Amino acid sequence: MTSIFPTAQDAESAFYDALERADLDAMMAVWADDEEIVCVHPGWPRLTGQDQVREGWRRIFKGPRMRVQVSQQVAVSAMMVAVHSVHETVTLAGEKGTRGPVVATNVYLRTAAGWRMIAHHGSLVPGEPQAPRDAPQTLH
Amino acid sequence: MTSIFPTAQDAESAFYDALERADLDAMMAVWADDEEIVCVHPGWPRLTGQDQVREGWRRIFKGPRMRVQVSQQVAVSAMMVAVHSVHETVTLAGEKGTRGPVVATNVYLRTAAGWRMIAHHGSLVPGEPQAPRDAPQTLH
Repeated sequence: MTSIFPTAQDAESAFYDALERADLDAMMAVWADDEEIVCVHPGWPRLTGQDQVREGWRRIFKGPRMRVQVSQQVAVSAMMVAVHSVHETVTLAGEKGTRGPVVATNVYLRTAAGWRMIAHHGSLVPGEPQAPRDAPQTLH
Repeated sequence: MTSIFPTAQDAESAFYDALERADLDAMMAVWADDEEIVCVHPGWPRLTGQDQVREGWRRIFKGPRMRVQVSQQVAVSAMMVAVHSVHETVTLAGEKGTRGPVVATNVYLRTAAGWRMIAHHGSLVPGEPQAPRDAPQTLH
């Protein structure tokens, strides 16, 4: 089954939905079918290509389930590409309180099969996030 | 003075050149004139917009000079955008040995004024980088 995401925002929603459900096939359906995809999890070495990216998510999904609250999106969109910067507030099942925030750079490309993720780079942010800025802002 | 970068690689070269020379005007000439630009330095909160990004570099450039060796580029390019993932090996003036590696996601947009950076996300990588993979690879 191949999902078609008509917008980058649809792909992003599917990405975080798959992450919360720990659904590996749904997660990989968000990614472009491309050996140059790049995924950086906080504190991990860079993963490139379908095999490494899938294996990374497989390992993460073997851990505790996550709830991810996405906020403070800053977006730049061009005809074929969208770059979303977001804060992720992560809650692990069985844990009180939240982890993070994580700042994530998510890059989506409009392919023949709809919008797909080509890069996800997450890293821990020290201290508190800045003031909420939830409304997507698109200039291009 | 406004520099025109005919390719994303030219913009990337100018970015690391400005970083090594601690040249704030040259650095900001690489960035798009856009309030949605995003810059994440390793361990820093996210910076957005021209003012925050400039102030961040100003603070970094007040510190010791850096030599940055860029390697292992993985690149995805579309008509208007280029996403480069690189490893940065950083040497600080007066320090023996290197810091990092830092993994950086650099996103460039083709604007009316040539290629400009719209996002830079750097974070520390644990342990050693993977095998060298210096040749740019472009699929799209």
